[in-house]
Amino acid sequence: MAALEHVLAKIDENQSAALDRLFNLLRIKSVSTDPAFKQDCQQAGQFLVDELTSLGFEASLRQTPGHPMVVAHAKAKRRDVPHVLFYGHYDVQPADPLELWETDPFNPRLVDAPTGKKIVARGAADDKGQLMTFVEACRAFHETGDLPCDVTILFEGEEETGSPSLPAFLAANKDELSADVALVCDTGMWNQSTPAITTMLRGLVLEEVTIHAASRDLHSGMFGGPAMNPIRVLSRIIADLHDETGRITLPGFYDGIEELPAEIAEQWRNLPFDEKAFLGDVGLAIPAGEQNRSVLEQIWSRPTCDVNGIWGGYTAKGSKTVLPAQASAKFSFRLVGQQNPQAIVEAFRAFVRARLPGDCRVEFLPHGASGALQLPFSSESLSRARRALAAEWQTEPVLAGCGGSIPIVGAFKRDLGMESLMIGFGLDDDRIHSPNEKYELSSFHKGARSWARVLNALAEQGA
Amino acid sequence: MAALEHVLAKIDENQSAALDRLFNLLRIKSVSTDPAFKQDCQQAGQFLVDELTSLGFEASLRQTPGHPMVVAHAKAKRRDVPHVLFYGHYDVQPADPLELWETDPFNPRLVDAPTGKKIVARGAADDKGQLMTFVEACRAFHETGDLPCDVTILFEGEEETGSPSLPAFLAANKDELSADVALVCDTGMWNQSTPAITTMLRGLVLEEVTIHAASRDLHSGMFGGPAMNPIRVLSRIIADLHDETGRITLPGFYDGIEELPAEIAEQWRNLPFDEKAFLGDVGLAIPAGEQNRSVLEQIWSRPTCDVNGIWGGYTAKGSKTVLPAQASAKFSFRLVGQQNPQAIVEAFRAFVRARLPGDCRVEFLPHGASGALQLPFSSESLSRARRALAAEWQTEPVLAGCGGSIPIVGAFKRDLGMESLMIGFGLDDDRIHSPNEKYELSSFHKGARSWARVLNALAEQGA
Repeated sequence: MAALEHVLAKIDENQSAALDRLFNLLRIKSVSTDPAFKQDCQQAGQFLVDELTSLGFEASLRQTPGHPMVVAHAKAKRRDVPHVLFYGHYDVQPADPLELWETDPFNPRLVDAPTGKKIVARGAADDKGQLMTFVEACRAFHETGDLPCDVTILFEGEEETGSPSLPAFLAANKDELSADVALVCDTGMWNQSTPAITTMLRGLVLEEVTIHAASRDLHSGMFGGPAMNPIRVLSRIIADLHDETGRITLPGFYDGIEELPAEIAEQWRNLPFDEKAFLGDVGLAIPAGEQNRSVLEQIWSRPTCDVNGIWGGYTAKGSKTVLPAQASAKFSFRLVGQQNPQAIVEAFRAFVRARLPGDCRVEFLPHGASGALQLPFSSESLSRARRALAAEWQTEPVLAGCGGSIPIVGAFKRDLGMESLMIGFGLDDDRIHSPNEKYELSSFHKGARSWARVLNALAEQGA
Repeated sequence: MAALEHVLAKIDENQSAALDRLFNLLRIKSVSTDPAFKQDCQQAGQFLVDELTSLGFEASLRQTPGHPMVVAHAKAKRRDVPHVLFYGHYDVQPADPLELWETDPFNPRLVDAPTGKKIVARGAADDKGQLMTFVEACRAFHETGDLPCDVTILFEGEEETGSPSLPAFLAANKDELSADVALVCDTGMWNQSTPAITTMLRGLVLEEVTIHAASRDLHSGMFGGPAMNPIRVLSRIIADLHDETGRITLPGFYDGIEELPAEIAEQWRNLPFDEKAFLGDVGLAIPAGEQNRSVLEQIWSRPTCDVNGIWGGYTAKGSKTVLPAQASAKFSFRLVGQQNPQAIVEAFRAFVRARLPGDCRVEFLPHGASGALQLPFSSESLSRARRALAAEWQTEPVLAGCGGSIPIVGAFKRDLGMESLMIGFGLDDDRIHSPNEKYELSSFHKGARSWARVLNALAEQGA
């Protein structure tokens, strides 16, 4: 196993060549959603197969009904080392609207800025720049000795289109892809100088509800008064779902949620997070969630109940004195900790039925239910990764939550029984999915150094 | 002035000829909404001018930007008699869908049925058959002597398209059209053997409300929790508008509403109204209005607050985890008695603002506000009309309310300062606006006799 200081020195030495390699990948227009770029996706996959093969991996392009997967394996010389699965994706979002790009999105360039050099191109941050940090770390190990862990790599080409081929591919290759821990590089840092490990992803329960009253739309002159109005019923349900302190009133809703460990709670309290600016950016000023929780907690570690859409009756211009026969709403619940998605679906449906007048009936249309994912704070690999990142960045990594979901992490947990360490080097202002996407050169360089340290730390014995 | 018994006998004698005259009018395709029938509308107006001229009226066709008005005047020989304005409309709804008619909608026919003969044609009940009851009463007076009242007649040709030319026409001809009382023949009977006088029309306040929260739609993964959801705000407002007994909670909402006179309340209690069948026809079973009010009261004499439409966020198929920037709803209030429309608009807006969180703003879009119309129960002309109808039908007329509005009655009140007696002979099953529209032959015949008696009663001295 190569000595860490040599590996880090090699990464520094390779900097310019590494950037060339990334630029070559960025030039490939691997837009997964547009069939016109099918061949480009193939080419991006092959580029990575060739790259990994040159680093001693046994790498292959695996065809799927959609774009191909890249799977590669390399073993450490030492036995009894951890086996990690690294995940990234080589496909990118379309570059449109092209006219808003300052230069060609597929002609990468380095731009000087007061905060440091930036790599500008479609996919620079999402996810080609990120995945190449890991490849460059592997290169440095290869060029100075060998890997400290057994490494399997999985790059997919359909992340931006919802990974339609992934579930079947994981199922069919379960043994080949299973490892001790997954490393997922598709998240961000706290800020440009503070790394982060995302340890919590909120789950999501999606339910559509339709309240039916009369058998047809009624004239409110004829029936206004005696006829039940389903919009009123639905509004009562929505109004009842929160109390005046912002708590969700579904019985049993908070079952399975533990308070944050004191250490994490304190770290979050001390983070320089500007609640005013966060809300102010979107025209708001007052945190609307649970009253005794900070905005960061409300997003990262607390559950929500939201209405994402509502409709019923006459919604065009002017007025129509109709009493609608039905009204519908789409609800979503963000879950945390050990909240049970199915129990919440049941509690919600019971809550709705309990508020249903005799003259109404309800239809439920489920749109999915998945629990939260939380890496145990006591996890050994988490501890090692924290130390490794702290050594590289000279500051403690933030143990962040994430308000949204990252489907691959759920799939690894569910289908392969693997926890994921989510470590990434993106920044909030990287403009992913937007024109002029960028990736900090410092993220690219120190990202590779970070992975070298993480792999090394995972493999250390008696650490 | 002709003796009433002679007038009634003349109406009986004229029956067959009266039906021929009505059929001639029904054959004219006076569909006001379709420009293809512009000439037919003109022709229907002219038909009525000729008809009235032959009865001694000074009648003329008055052009408007749309279809012409028919205005006619005839004076009683006696002086100091009441002056009535009779209103009806000669235009009809389109006959589509034609394939659902058993015979040509503009080729009127008499159909035998167990409940009596029916006149089947487009416009038979709405409103050609109804207006011809009055014309036939005038004919009988003319053929046996002279009219008991001074009579002005106004027939319009745009009722089915919202009477666009009427307000300006009333304003321009205010003196000519003003009378002591208006007689409006566009309503129904309680049932085939029980006449009705509609004495109350509910008013209508229409308000559209948009609640704005964030400056743009937000991702619920990123902002779910701290960001205020305008659908929740709107739902709370809607839920708060009624208490658990069905009462409307707007402060001052019930100001200006008096209880029904005991006599009317008792009449309504004794009416054979089948609440179960009324609601059952539209799939409902439980009256949803104020708990201590009958369904008839809820429709005829009690105010309502309804949501006619609601929309916000994602409403297409599937799910989208969006927190919408705004949500909207259309509200309508049906008013009764002396409820003040403007005061209710103000109370409603204050109610909404009182429930607006700091991070939201509200926009109101008014769609109209008009008060209820109620003929005073103590009105002398109402008493006379009641007696006249009771004499013809051998049963007390129902003093009905009407849940909807009849714009002409409001216009007469507002623009000409006239109360209206709404007396009509339609039935709920006349299928107006639908295929196979019909009018009972008994309505046509006894309708004419009823008008003869009403005109006579209005003119009786010292009655």
